[in-house]
Order: sequence, then C-alpha cells, then structure tokens
Amino acid sequence: MKTEIITIGDEILIGQIVDTNSAWMGEQLNLHGIEVYQVTSVHDDHDHILKALANAEKEVDLVLITGGLGPTKDDITKHCLCEYFNTELVYHPEVFEHVQTLLSSRNVSINQLNRDQALLPASCTVLHNSAGTASGMWFERNGTIFVSMPGVPFEMEAIMTEEVFPRLMKLGNAQSIVHKTILTLGLPESTLSEKIEGWESALPGFIKLAYLPSALTVRLRLSAYGTDKSLLEAEIEKQVKELQHIIPEYIFGFDDENMALVIGRMLVESSKTLAVAESCTGGNIAHSITSNAGSSAYFKGGVVAYSNEIKTRLLEVPPVMIETHGAVSQQVAEAMAVGVQKAMNADYSIATTGIAGPDGGTSEKPVGTIWIAVAGPSGVKSQEFIFRHNRERNIIRSTQTALNFLRKLILKDQSAK
Amino acid sequence: MKTEIITIGDEILIGQIVDTNSAWMGEQLNLHGIEVYQVTSVHDDHDHILKALANAEKEVDLVLITGGLGPTKDDITKHCLCEYFNTELVYHPEVFEHVQTLLSSRNVSINQLNRDQALLPASCTVLHNSAGTASGMWFERNGTIFVSMPGVPFEMEAIMTEEVFPRLMKLGNAQSIVHKTILTLGLPESTLSEKIEGWESALPGFIKLAYLPSALTVRLRLSAYGTDKSLLEAEIEKQVKELQHIIPEYIFGFDDENMALVIGRMLVESSKTLAVAESCTGGNIAHSITSNAGSSAYFKGGVVAYSNEIKTRLLEVPPVMIETHGAVSQQVAEAMAVGVQKAMNADYSIATTGIAGPDGGTSEKPVGTIWIAVAGPSGVKSQEFIFRHNRERNIIRSTQTALNFLRKLILKDQSAK
Repeated sequence: MKTEIITIGDEILIGQIVDTNSAWMGEQLNLHGIEVYQVTSVHDDHDHILKALANAEKEVDLVLITGGLGPTKDDITKHCLCEYFNTELVYHPEVFEHVQTLLSSRNVSINQLNRDQALLPASCTVLHNSAGTASGMWFERNGTIFVSMPGVPFEMEAIMTEEVFPRLMKLGNAQSIVHKTILTLGLPESTLSEKIEGWESALPGFIKLAYLPSALTVRLRLSAYGTDKSLLEAEIEKQVKELQHIIPEYIFGFDDENMALVIGRMLVESSKTLAVAESCTGGNIAHSITSNAGSSAYFKGGVVAYSNEIKTRLLEVPPVMIETHGAVSQQVAEAMAVGVQKAMNADYSIATTGIAGPDGGTSEKPVGTIWIAVAGPSGVKSQEFIFRHNRERNIIRSTQTALNFLRKLILKDQSAK
Repeated sequence: MKTEIITIGDEILIGQIVDTNSAWMGEQLNLHGIEVYQVTSVHDDHDHILKALANAEKEVDLVLITGGLGPTKDDITKHCLCEYFNTELVYHPEVFEHVQTLLSSRNVSINQLNRDQALLPASCTVLHNSAGTASGMWFERNGTIFVSMPGVPFEMEAIMTEEVFPRLMKLGNAQSIVHKTILTLGLPESTLSEKIEGWESALPGFIKLAYLPSALTVRLRLSAYGTDKSLLEAEIEKQVKELQHIIPEYIFGFDDENMALVIGRMLVESSKTLAVAESCTGGNIAHSITSNAGSSAYFKGGVVAYSNEIKTRLLEVPPVMIETHGAVSQQVAEAMAVGVQKAMNADYSIATTGIAGPDGGTSEKPVGTIWIAVAGPSGVKSQEFIFRHNRERNIIRSTQTALNFLRKLILKDQSAK
C-alpha cells in the first residue's frame, strides 16, 4: 500500500516545531508493512492543501493528513476536505457528547468553537479521538483512502492506533518489510564501509543497506522486502550474525537501543550499581540513564555539581585541588568520580567537568574542553576531550562519550574475570 | 523568494530519524525573510528524486536539497543531479585537498570512497563544506536555484550559514516577514481563543495569528508580511502590548524562550539561587535549567535521588518518613525540597518524587502520580499531580509542571515585597 503523509501547518514550514508526527507514522506504518512513499508539509493555505491532496491522489493508495483541525480560525483543513470531496458539514450529536464529557473532565467550560467540532463532513466515516476533541475523518474515492487527523501528536497517535491501523489491517494487502538496525561506534562511515564491503556486496537483492551516521555513532539499517515475513526475518538474522563476526568490537546494540540502555543491561547482568557526578553535562547523563524504564534497578542517583561549592560539599573534592588545577582538570574529574562513588555507595561512577559554552573558555581551555572520569572496582580512569561545538552539541557529545567510556571500562572488567 | 525544501533519505520515511534539517532551514529562511512554500521528503530512489526536482522547479524559485551525499553506495543524490542537469562529474583537486586535510586531522586514513567525494558535477558551483567531506552544490536553471547539501545537520548548517545565505542575500529580493511568538500557560486553546477573540478579529490584514498548543503551553505566533520591516516590527509590538493587557497572568515568555530560562532571569534579577532534588524526573529538571547558557550564575546544582538510600544520605529525608508515607508522598517531597535547599545552601529549590512508569504503579498510586514541592525564603509548598501518560511524557510534564510551580512561588515572593 503506497502511502503519502501530508502534514499541514505554517508552524512546520517556519521551523517553529519539528515534524515528529511523520516520523512516528513512518515508523508505525513500516512495522505494519506499509511503505511511505513521500512526506509533504504544506501551509494552512486553502489552495495549497487542495493541490497537495490532488497530487497525492494521483500517486498513492493511502493519504494520511495531520494538522489544521483545532477549534480556532487558522485551522482550515476540515473546510478544505469538504470542498475536495464535494460534501457538507453535518452535526454529529455523539461527537458533541464526547467533546462535552472530555472538557468537563478537564474542568473546561464548553464554548461555540468546541461545539463546532461536532460538525463533520457528511461523506466521511468519523474516527473517534479518545485523546482530544478533534475527530479523525476517513474518506475513500477511486481506490484511494484519505485519513485526516489532528496535529497534536498524542491525539494523532491515539486515532492511528485505535482507529486507522485496525481498519487498514482488515484491508490486508500489505507487503512485508523487515528492518534491523545495527548500532556501531568507533569507526567513521567510510572506514566502516571499507571494512564491510565484501559482506555488503554479497547481500541478497531483496535486502537494502543504509548507513545512518550521527554524532558519534553509525547505524546500519538492513531492510528486507518480500511476501514471506518469517523468511525475511531469518535472512536478516543470518546477515547480522555474519556482520558480528566481521566487526564485533564496534557493535554496541541493535534497533532502538541506546548506549545508556546497553550499559544498564551490563550492570544488571553483573549485579553492579552506578552513580554519576555531573558538572558541564548538567544532569543530561542522569536523564539519559533514567529515560530507560527499569533504571532504578542499577542507578543509585547523581549529583549535578554546578558550582565549586557543591563539588566540595557533596563530593568531597578538596578546595585546594580546585584552586591549584582549576575545576576543569584531570584531578577534579577523578576526585568527583571517586567522591560520588563513595557518597552513593555505588560500584561504578561517571564524572564530567568541562566548559559547555558559549562563555567560560580560555586560550588554554577553550569552550568544548571536557574531562571525563570513570571509576569502578578496578580503580579510576580519565581522559580529556575537546569538542569545540555549541553548548547543546557539547552537552550531547560529552554525555555520549562519557557513557561509552564507562561501557569500555565495564567490558574490560568483565573480560578480566 | 518562494522556496521548497527536499529532504532525501529512506531513514526519514521509515521514521528512523526525525527530519530536524527542514525545521532548522525553515526557521533560518524566515529570519532572512524567505518563505518556505513546501517541504517534501523522498526516498533514496532515482526516479523519485528526479520527479521531486521537476515538481519543485515548476513551483518555486529556490530548491534546497539535503541528504544522499555521503561516501557510501546508498547515497545517489549527486548522480541524480548530474542526470537532471545533463552534466558530468569532474575532479576538483581543491576539494580533494580539503577532504584529505580534514580526515588526517581526525586521524582517519583516506580511501577510494573519500577520493570520490572530490568528483562533482561540471555545471555546478561547488560550496565549501567546512564541517565535513561532502561539498555542497549550487545550480541555476531557468530562474530557479537548486542547492544540494549533505544530510548531517551540522554540515548542512555550516554550508547554509557560510555559503548559501551570503549568496541569497546578494540576490536581495526577499520579502520581509516578522514573527513574534507569545508563550502562554494555564488556559486551554479554546478558552484562550474566546478570551482574545476581540483582539484577534481586530488584527490588521497583513498580520496572521496561529495557535500552537503543546503539552502544557499554547504559543501564539504573530506573523506580519510586507516590504517595510521596521513598520512590521512596530505593528507587531503594538499588538503584543495590547495582548499583554488582556491576558497578563497567562503570558510567561516570548519567542524561543523556555520556562527554565524565564525562571533563570527572575532569579538573576532578584540575586537568588536554585537547587533541585529529583527522583522521578531523573535529572531532566537540572538538564532543562543547565541547557540555558549562563545558568551557572543562579543554579547551584542538583541531586538525582533515584534510590531511597540517597534521599536519606544526601537529602536528610528520615528513613522512618519514607517507611511510613512511602517515597511518593507529600512528606517526602517536602523533605527533599528542604533537604536540598539546605545541602546546597540555595534560596529556592524544587523536588519531585513520583512514578514515571511503566512499572511501579499501584491502585492507590497509579503510574503518573507525582508529588512536587518547592521551597523558598517564605517556606515550602507542595502539590500532587496525576499525569497517567507513558514514561517519556510523564517525565516531560512533571518537569514543566515543577518549573511552573517554582515560577509562581517566585512571582508571589516578588509581589509580596
């Protein structure tokens, strides 16, 4: 089923919001074996919306539309759909009742704009929105299905999950697609590509390989297309096993895993605990760890030691050490790691201290200079990194680098056994 | 200058990455007074790429293309552009030299794939990529400009900033657009819309208003279109002032400000400091605060007290209190707030304790139950919230709610003076 996603909203085109809806839909559609052919983002503009609908109808079997269904004046999608399908708005008492119930549960009084949300095109099937007041709409014409949903992510997700996918699966003509992503770290894209060239060339024709580089990692995505899902899965598994023989040391995880999750699994397996002491990363390492469900099994906690006073009071870093070497130094990073390991009675710890920017840099220690230390049962290790990016990227790269530094220490400890 | 952005990459359409490039470009183009007409995302597919280029050429004056320029086999954009513009790849020694210099500075040895990055279409102007090895390309045909750039965000951003905008500004026929966004919190979209209906109806025709609701906030974006930029700015400012008279208590900031930044400004103005104690938010409040440059002026630090042991050891929460009332309770939240205020010698503090999920919920305290406490010079306040979302959204909403709770306390303290 060839699909186009149309996201409507000026806020997308002027970059005020990032269009996460199409990414969520793309992922979910793929899991259901449906291929997204194109994503198109257009303005809240009558002519442009009608043109986008007509273009999509020419190309695809399924058009998923988000945005422009709110109760306010700038939301015009519903009226455009009426015009496109040559139909009129009719009153749906059951929708009005739902809007009324939902708003009163939120202690919001109903007004005319809310009442108008019960007016929906006569020729569509109304899709219940369990998470909000704007209903979804399902149209069919000349073999093409059109679904319109609100742009608020969790409302769109509710309608897709509860109303759209069950209907699509009943149609049941979806091709099978199987994806597997291998997460690598430590090799730049071109070197990695050279290393796995032979494997890549020998991939069967129905498997596609894509390289997805980001800050420090390169993800390798295998996609297999066909009709027999279990056959596709078996072939993907076989190819992944072969790859694991070629670059074992560079693979740290699969699919939507992340470095913090992988570390968590290693800690659970070895019954060890973790604590963190963060200066320049400002809580982002703790946040990365605790974003994973179940992290309370191995994560004791963290100290965000943003001022020198806190480094001394809570982590027992000697004031004279900070005076002598500066807060951004090997000595302080190591003292923070050992200090938090002790304060939290943890097996492993991570500490960061650096200059995230934009201010605070010197010629000797420019913005992006960061000391990372990790401590474990076998002692403490530290290393200096210089990232020279903006504040946001310095924080992200420091976080990833620190987690990987710990991962390597745990691996080493495990292999030493 | 009517513009279309084309982002190329299978990974976008299967939702493996979120297309942040087009949001960044949309925002920057608007700041330069250039309107994005449409964003189109297509596969790494020869026919589809050529079709998207042809469709864009019919509609717009400027086509910005990202993605598919990496050194590996799945990157085919360069070859598609050669075909589209009926030209051939030629060797650029200065590009090869740049690739070589860049890779050796990263201690990466050069290979054939890197060498091929110096092969670029004969009919384009090569745009220097200071941040990577894939050059940008600038083509012109029949009055339409095409620019192709790599999909790695910071490489695209470098080429846009250093090469594309200076050239576009020389062409100098851009319309002026002035945006101003008002950040509101506390009113749902429909109630807000009713309250400001008179103001909205009286807006001049060249100013558009858009409602941008998200988790807890509704942003109101005013966009003014015309030729005289200073006149547009003056009119926008006048309208914002009028709005501030209508809903003063619901406006907490403007444009790309965020709640943590606004709180930071209030703390700096009153020379006060802040510390946080986080359980269920796991470091995300500290991260939100420290994401803002200059936060070290008012943020002392935080304790991520993920285990009860740490609540006791570092925040002096009595073990018997945790036993009697449970870790997720009013008593523990307040004790954490007071504990961290004292431990960090801070004027204000925030504490969170709750059940982020997916596990740990009970019938009495379901997933999403959270106690938030804030402490200040005037004492401690606390409140229970029940969010009932997934882990990620529970953490985000708890963070926003906790920050807003503190904002209200500071406001009250200030008005009491």
